[in-house]
Amino acid sequence: MLYPQIKEILKFPADSRDVTVRGWVRTKRDLKNLVFVEVNDGSCFSSIQCTFDREAGLDSDTEQSLGELSTGSSVEIRGKLVTSPASGQAVEIASAQLRIIGIAPAESYPLQKKRHSFEFLREIGHLRARTNTFGAVARVRSRMAFAIHEFFQQNGFQYVHTPIITASDAEGAGAMFQVTTLDLDGIAKSGKPVDYSKDFFGKQSFLTVSGQLEGETYATALSRIYTFGPTFRAENSNTTRHLAEFWMIEPEFAFAELEDNMELAENFLKFLFRKALDECAEDLTFFDNQIQKGIIETLTSVVNSKFTHITYTDAVAELEKHAGEFEFKPYWGCDLQSEHEKFLTEKAAAGPVIVTDYPKEIKAFYMKQNDDGKTVRAMDVLVPRLGEIIGGSERESSLEKLEKRITEMGMNPEDYWWYLDLRRYGTVPHAGFGLGFERLILYITGMANIRDVIPYPRAVGQAEF
Amino acid sequence: MLYPQIKEILKFPADSRDVTVRGWVRTKRDLKNLVFVEVNDGSCFSSIQCTFDREAGLDSDTEQSLGELSTGSSVEIRGKLVTSPASGQAVEIASAQLRIIGIAPAESYPLQKKRHSFEFLREIGHLRARTNTFGAVARVRSRMAFAIHEFFQQNGFQYVHTPIITASDAEGAGAMFQVTTLDLDGIAKSGKPVDYSKDFFGKQSFLTVSGQLEGETYATALSRIYTFGPTFRAENSNTTRHLAEFWMIEPEFAFAELEDNMELAENFLKFLFRKALDECAEDLTFFDNQIQKGIIETLTSVVNSKFTHITYTDAVAELEKHAGEFEFKPYWGCDLQSEHEKFLTEKAAAGPVIVTDYPKEIKAFYMKQNDDGKTVRAMDVLVPRLGEIIGGSERESSLEKLEKRITEMGMNPEDYWWYLDLRRYGTVPHAGFGLGFERLILYITGMANIRDVIPYPRAVGQAEF
Repeated sequence: MLYPQIKEILKFPADSRDVTVRGWVRTKRDLKNLVFVEVNDGSCFSSIQCTFDREAGLDSDTEQSLGELSTGSSVEIRGKLVTSPASGQAVEIASAQLRIIGIAPAESYPLQKKRHSFEFLREIGHLRARTNTFGAVARVRSRMAFAIHEFFQQNGFQYVHTPIITASDAEGAGAMFQVTTLDLDGIAKSGKPVDYSKDFFGKQSFLTVSGQLEGETYATALSRIYTFGPTFRAENSNTTRHLAEFWMIEPEFAFAELEDNMELAENFLKFLFRKALDECAEDLTFFDNQIQKGIIETLTSVVNSKFTHITYTDAVAELEKHAGEFEFKPYWGCDLQSEHEKFLTEKAAAGPVIVTDYPKEIKAFYMKQNDDGKTVRAMDVLVPRLGEIIGGSERESSLEKLEKRITEMGMNPEDYWWYLDLRRYGTVPHAGFGLGFERLILYITGMANIRDVIPYPRAVGQAEF
Repeated sequence: MLYPQIKEILKFPADSRDVTVRGWVRTKRDLKNLVFVEVNDGSCFSSIQCTFDREAGLDSDTEQSLGELSTGSSVEIRGKLVTSPASGQAVEIASAQLRIIGIAPAESYPLQKKRHSFEFLREIGHLRARTNTFGAVARVRSRMAFAIHEFFQQNGFQYVHTPIITASDAEGAGAMFQVTTLDLDGIAKSGKPVDYSKDFFGKQSFLTVSGQLEGETYATALSRIYTFGPTFRAENSNTTRHLAEFWMIEPEFAFAELEDNMELAENFLKFLFRKALDECAEDLTFFDNQIQKGIIETLTSVVNSKFTHITYTDAVAELEKHAGEFEFKPYWGCDLQSEHEKFLTEKAAAGPVIVTDYPKEIKAFYMKQNDDGKTVRAMDVLVPRLGEIIGGSERESSLEKLEKRITEMGMNPEDYWWYLDLRRYGTVPHAGFGLGFERLILYITGMANIRDVIPYPRAVGQAEF
């Protein structure tokens, strides 16, 4: 039987029941007759206070253990759950017995009571989940991942695992990592051209940059699907917003047009933020107080908002009226910059905005073409404070138009035979979008650096642990 | 608003309500005055029957569309939901209007009514989810993935994303894929030794073979965690049981010993099988009838069984009594073979068996050592028909013993500095196990080839789509 964790114990009534707490010591205060030990087990933000009363009598093992106890040590404490006289906690443990399971030597344990910089904590990534901040990030991440599954499963979407290793750079979405079992030193020695027929898959292969195209194959069989898996970009950008390895969610649904896609994205984000506010309340309060003021208010306002819809053309016209306020002058055909997105969500609409119908030149080949011959049925969902959080589109369902566009863009339709088959056999209007999971977590927690919202970040020169 | 899918429509009462069905045509039967069209949308196994009554009068567009309609075409059908006179279905659609969205030309569409071999369907992996079998596999896969999250989230386990790209072969679990952005042709031309400082991560890096070690770092902070992600083995084995890319679930929990681990594994499997029986009943009935007789009975019996516990030493003694029945003669120290596992689950215990305390020589370095100096606190969970479905252990929590074992096995403790830190600072008894997701799906569906239970299998020489 799994024992009750601190999260559960804190909700029990203070009826003097016997409880056992297992966890790691956060602090110890020894006040002559009373010793206070705060124990955390990571099940929730709060630690539980365990009070040892020398006047009530302590056994000699417990007395000795109290003397040796240091921050970070693992313990098992037995006592009775009673009303806490201290503020900020309903219950505490009137403790009878303390057993140290594993000591954390004070002279070497890196996580002492003082505040550590996030840079330092990244160097001890194997221990940082033991801190308030990274424990909270981990819990929010876990709860949001589950909420994503809940949302899609409740709405008839099937979870599909699209392949991680791929032999085609189908989306052309960015620089790719190569995957190989060839002996690189052997290649250097031989001096001969690389023979990929000898590689594991018999041809050159890579890590996926998106599961969308494969996702579409399942959406046109099961009607509604979503992916949730790791995705890779070998981009040499050392920023607080990019990772070489990140997790992405990509729903795709059939018999759906751009309007359905916009509605799904809005409902999806609101569902997630509501879950975060309801079920991660304690962690969010910490982030709001200590990391980024106003988070809870922003999330609440998004949940209560109606997303504004605006075409790219109208958005650019609006931005041009305020051209003087921007570093990058907006013009029809430009990619929207952060400052533009900020203006749209924080000034023009004062809330979330979905921009649609972008110029085809700045969007991917698979997006449905509008009759104007210039724009495609793309959408970007922008939220206040962050900018783009979701990008998606209705997909081109016409075989002729899609083939033509592939050729126009200098690609070879033969490489896309299976993708084109979806338009050859029972084609349907369909749409989908992508959400970067770490961007979602950045937004919900208010953390500033994307490396701090994934357990073990991978970036240029960084693959520790 | 998401429209009701066939799964939902089939549960509506036959109250002549107006309904619209969107999906792909499975069959059409034209009987002079009546035309029957079976439509499937992948939301469930069943198709819905749409009946067109010429005597009641059909509009000319619908009449023309009925003439053109072919298997695989996408359609939108409007009509009234009525009681079906046919057996095997409660409701059908008295159809008024048919609109073909996308035709599937009969002369070229690969999925005609006849039965196709699984080998052939693997070649058209982008279309195979449109068949009965692969639609059912996809739905079971999706539901089981969600059930895994439900089980762990309900039990206080946090979902952790351990890294996919790693710079250490920490577990030593098997052949690894190398990940690189180096220019292999350039290496061949230069003839110089490979300079990994120029590679993306500044050192040689690989695809993960297990998230366990990183998972332990989070389990010793949050108490209970699980991973669920892709895992890779570059093994040159072309079998029906191995994939180069597969998904794995690895729970890890603190303040837990082998006994807790056994209980967790048993409860976990029973939870999953019960969910499959309850919520994938229609798909399971198909598998039981068409793919592997007896599946539902086996799953039900596992759910209702008490798992037998036996030590490796006792298991081998039992096997030795029946040595004559085996091709591989069992002896203390041997790896258990399939035939041995089969004997244990189907004859000795007649039900699931957990074998514990294996010889340390055949198990990984991180397993907790028993006092006998010969065995470790490993466990393998064996189920009838499949054999090993779960492998796990209590982990060594003693710094001294773990360091010694690492050295004994010819590895360098310095490579494991962060893993050893977990024993240096607040060490706790902890345990965990691994479940290969595709093996689970094989077991539940009765499918014979692991390549048929993952959307796009990767194996030697195989990375299509």
